[in-house]
Amino acid sequence: MTIGEASAPPSDNMPAGPVRVDLVFEPGGKRVRVPQGVTLFDAASWNGIAIDSTCGGHGTCRKCRVRVLDAPGPPSALDARAFTPAELADGWRLACRAQATTDARVDVPPLVTRPKAATVGVGRQVILRPAVQKRYLELAEPTLRDQITDAERVLAALDDLELRIDLDVLRTLGRVLRAADYKVTAVVVDDVLIGVEPGDTSARRYGIAFDLGTTTVVATLLDLATGTPVAVESVLNAQQPFGADVISRISATMLDPAALDRLRALAAETLAGLAAEVCAHGEVEPHEVYEVALAGNATMTHLVLGIDPEPLGMAPFIMATRLFPEVLAADLGIGVHPRARAVVFPAFGAYVGGDITAGLLASGMDRDARIRLFVDIGTNCEIVLGNREWLLATAAPAGPAFEGAAIRCGMRAADGAIEVVTMTPDALELKVIGDTEPAGLCGSGLVDAVTGLVRLGLLDPSGRFVPEPDAVALAPGLAGRLTRLGEERVFVLHWLGPPGDVAQSIYLTQRDVRELQFAKAAIATGWRILLEEAGLAVTDIQQVLLAGSFGSYLSPANAIRLGLVPEIGVLRVVSAGNVAGEGAKMALLSLRERAAGLALLEEVRYVELSDRPDFNDRFVAQLSFPG
Amino acid sequence: MTIGEASAPPSDNMPAGPVRVDLVFEPGGKRVRVPQGVTLFDAASWNGIAIDSTCGGHGTCRKCRVRVLDAPGPPSALDARAFTPAELADGWRLACRAQATTDARVDVPPLVTRPKAATVGVGRQVILRPAVQKRYLELAEPTLRDQITDAERVLAALDDLELRIDLDVLRTLGRVLRAADYKVTAVVVDDVLIGVEPGDTSARRYGIAFDLGTTTVVATLLDLATGTPVAVESVLNAQQPFGADVISRISATMLDPAALDRLRALAAETLAGLAAEVCAHGEVEPHEVYEVALAGNATMTHLVLGIDPEPLGMAPFIMATRLFPEVLAADLGIGVHPRARAVVFPAFGAYVGGDITAGLLASGMDRDARIRLFVDIGTNCEIVLGNREWLLATAAPAGPAFEGAAIRCGMRAADGAIEVVTMTPDALELKVIGDTEPAGLCGSGLVDAVTGLVRLGLLDPSGRFVPEPDAVALAPGLAGRLTRLGEERVFVLHWLGPPGDVAQSIYLTQRDVRELQFAKAAIATGWRILLEEAGLAVTDIQQVLLAGSFGSYLSPANAIRLGLVPEIGVLRVVSAGNVAGEGAKMALLSLRERAAGLALLEEVRYVELSDRPDFNDRFVAQLSFPG
Repeated sequence: MTIGEASAPPSDNMPAGPVRVDLVFEPGGKRVRVPQGVTLFDAASWNGIAIDSTCGGHGTCRKCRVRVLDAPGPPSALDARAFTPAELADGWRLACRAQATTDARVDVPPLVTRPKAATVGVGRQVILRPAVQKRYLELAEPTLRDQITDAERVLAALDDLELRIDLDVLRTLGRVLRAADYKVTAVVVDDVLIGVEPGDTSARRYGIAFDLGTTTVVATLLDLATGTPVAVESVLNAQQPFGADVISRISATMLDPAALDRLRALAAETLAGLAAEVCAHGEVEPHEVYEVALAGNATMTHLVLGIDPEPLGMAPFIMATRLFPEVLAADLGIGVHPRARAVVFPAFGAYVGGDITAGLLASGMDRDARIRLFVDIGTNCEIVLGNREWLLATAAPAGPAFEGAAIRCGMRAADGAIEVVTMTPDALELKVIGDTEPAGLCGSGLVDAVTGLVRLGLLDPSGRFVPEPDAVALAPGLAGRLTRLGEERVFVLHWLGPPGDVAQSIYLTQRDVRELQFAKAAIATGWRILLEEAGLAVTDIQQVLLAGSFGSYLSPANAIRLGLVPEIGVLRVVSAGNVAGEGAKMALLSLRERAAGLALLEEVRYVELSDRPDFNDRFVAQLSFPG
Repeated sequence: MTIGEASAPPSDNMPAGPVRVDLVFEPGGKRVRVPQGVTLFDAASWNGIAIDSTCGGHGTCRKCRVRVLDAPGPPSALDARAFTPAELADGWRLACRAQATTDARVDVPPLVTRPKAATVGVGRQVILRPAVQKRYLELAEPTLRDQITDAERVLAALDDLELRIDLDVLRTLGRVLRAADYKVTAVVVDDVLIGVEPGDTSARRYGIAFDLGTTTVVATLLDLATGTPVAVESVLNAQQPFGADVISRISATMLDPAALDRLRALAAETLAGLAAEVCAHGEVEPHEVYEVALAGNATMTHLVLGIDPEPLGMAPFIMATRLFPEVLAADLGIGVHPRARAVVFPAFGAYVGGDITAGLLASGMDRDARIRLFVDIGTNCEIVLGNREWLLATAAPAGPAFEGAAIRCGMRAADGAIEVVTMTPDALELKVIGDTEPAGLCGSGLVDAVTGLVRLGLLDPSGRFVPEPDAVALAPGLAGRLTRLGEERVFVLHWLGPPGDVAQSIYLTQRDVRELQFAKAAIATGWRILLEEAGLAVTDIQQVLLAGSFGSYLSPANAIRLGLVPEIGVLRVVSAGNVAGEGAKMALLSLRERAAGLALLEEVRYVELSDRPDFNDRFVAQLSFPG
């Protein structure tokens, strides 16, 4: 297959995404395919090809010199200053300004300094170009013959960057410079000088990546010089008392005008507590953390920023914004460096939030030639289908089954939760989180139990428990567990009291099975509609990525058996882990990856399910289990 | 004289300023001369020629279409999108992007809407293009088929601007839009959407211009739609208890670590009080004030921003910065719209501050073909010489004589101060501020008294009182006033008690005369050195502008007699008034004038006096009065 083969939009009735172009980077001949209009610097960075740069692609250091071998575009104003006319005629351009407009070959000169790289996300190699830079400076003292201002003196020593200075820095700059004998370390975040520290502190610079979940919040402290995680901590979101899911938290703000401020404060508390913990465990001073990144769903992002979430909660489901303005970590209550920036992932829509943007970034959905299906399973399930040519997204209302809520003996995936259920016709085996006495059933256990029962025939394809005599024939060792509690038929997973005492057991009800069927039907309807929009069949899908914490507990085989994901080879269903958190790490480690996250907004087309007249019929058709 | 004639730098040993180019704007044929590299839009605006624009020159509205008639430069990337290839070949360009690189003729199409203009400063016609804009919008309600975010919905209706949105706006945007049925007024300041107000409030938008003096602070409330001042108030700077002059305030911060915070708070109090007063008097709600501008000397500016001023106070006199970062009025404690911006004038140097930048802007020093001398007289005297081709600046340490300090019977120009002294050989007449009993002598009265005595011969050219017998011969009616207080010779201006009781009188001492001589010598040395740097003679000066509140009290004739300003025709010495405040008004009324203020930083060359080996001799030579 040649690179160009998959380039046409998969279906005529689907709007084409941005046009793509093919680039070949020499020496090495690596061939990449990128949306038309991205810079050569981004195109290279996103594909793991390093080009010299000290400014990170801001057009200020003029070090990212490359030679466009065929049909170079017109030089930019900056090129005219960076190159001689002969060089320009020869195709030399600054890679951070030259756009990929047509297929081209690009020659990259040998690197002066080879930047470090780190593996993040789903096997993504990220060239380290963090927004946070430090430079140790030894400056000349001013004299009556050299009266330039303190700010200009510092900036002149950073002339490969074009920086704004924070007022906070100016307030004490005179004192710091003079007390440190003009030997200082400049702390730069993106295009802002946020600090000038006495002496040489250039070896220490950190960032914190937050995955701000509705249920759980995870923080990773990163060494930005090496890309290494230094400490990881997680905690329950302190907003829990306002409800387990986003809708109940949005409702809270509608009922009580003080709730929004309170929810914002609780988010801030959660983040601040985690930041303090990872710093303590990583032996890093909080003021050495110069940037944080935050990936969360749209509601969590609105709440942490104090944005009224009400329009998210009801049709037509409107976000205040897709791009969140630059804020300080301090504005979010996070006690790190007082001028540390907080990067908040942009969101596609009310139900495809910044966590999904981060997840797509981490899983390289926009770079891979293969057609892949990304499924983040939760109360709301986000589904993305596509490859580096096009991406379709939707959100399916899966309901709370996977979080253990609305399931009679359900619980979150915490100590005591049955997370694995293995069944044969004769026996049943459980795996419990924390290896303790079972206390309930979490999402993955639920899926295991139901798929086991379907496989053994104790649940028929429509999701009904079979009559008891049939059960005895099909699974003699388990039939005793298929019983009743009052009117309702149940299947007992574990006797807490004496066998036979159903009330004192952990069991699965007919209604629980229905809940799971609703959830899986919503999800399966979602990806089937996306496939149809793309004009593709199930067999065209080359990989399924199960994302989110639930995804990593779920067994790929059972996900297939349940019909939650398409029936493709089990090895092609991959648990991708906490991709939102990985995306947040990537944003801290590379300005170019951060730009890629933004670019994703233009790549993804959202398909709204809630107003489709055919949704209900299709949903009903998906309720049954695969034969 | 042709336009080009004055273009060469006046002296070979003086570094040339930026190269100038001549532009002729058609129809009308107005010929202007501007620094090479400014945009055609700025060149036109600065010379009172209006070009269509709704974005104020940000390159977003694409309305500033002009045709460059000869030798148009290469089109910008934006031009390529705004014009057809045929139009580009015909010389059509966006005026806000096209730079004046060579002499050219530019054709300006008839205006679609004629912008208002206002006269500000020293007869400056300013085309009203304030940063603050309001637009009334009637938006469509979102639906499931039109799910764009609230922010994008508002921004799409403002597509001639490219705006960032304040987080504060996002926080309540959903609620405001829905409560107002999507009929709202957008409040834009420069490139930021700072407010979305329910209903149509587009008729009301205000700004406050502050002249932040060491002694007095003046606030002018401006109607930004008409350019009209609505209310003006002034008040003593509440920092007075920390000393009358900048050096004592800087010293205070060096002695007491808490003083900087206190000085900052006092500045904030002063500004906040004035803002409340002008709003009350102008019947404007504080939240209708969307921008403020601030012109102050470098020390006042450092203090109000909370920047450590210590390096300003001692050689080599270093500012933290020339350009002050964007701040909110709220950050300065000013209770107007919570997201109102505060524009702080940039400063040339520690002793040529933002008040002078504003003053030069208001007096058009950078636009006028005539060679002019700008003198702002105070404890520190700022002097600027030049024309639209070149500008030289210096600061002369005049000492406190003009503020009434260090003068035995001196006082500020307040009620009771003798402000005019008229003398003949036979009689003496006083004019007192407030028409009350005299209480002391302010700067202009001091100058009048001394020049009167010199003219009558009672002071000899060296500044010594003549012997008493000579006085009787020269001025029989005044000789009785030339007497002694203890050892010191004094001249009595007004008997408060019985005639003859010197201790109960308002008088001028020999030492007072010396103070004034020191002050005038410092100033005269300053402008003489500038003339010499420029290779010019006194007779080359075509106008002298006396700036600052002291300048407006001083009689031009006496300023010449004293030798404070060059001996040119008295009609050529003009009292320019409070030009710093006028410059601040211009910055509020026009983004282009604000840009001109910034551009001034590159135009002015600073000449440091304090390390000149010849300064002392030249100073001594200037001590005597003109013959």
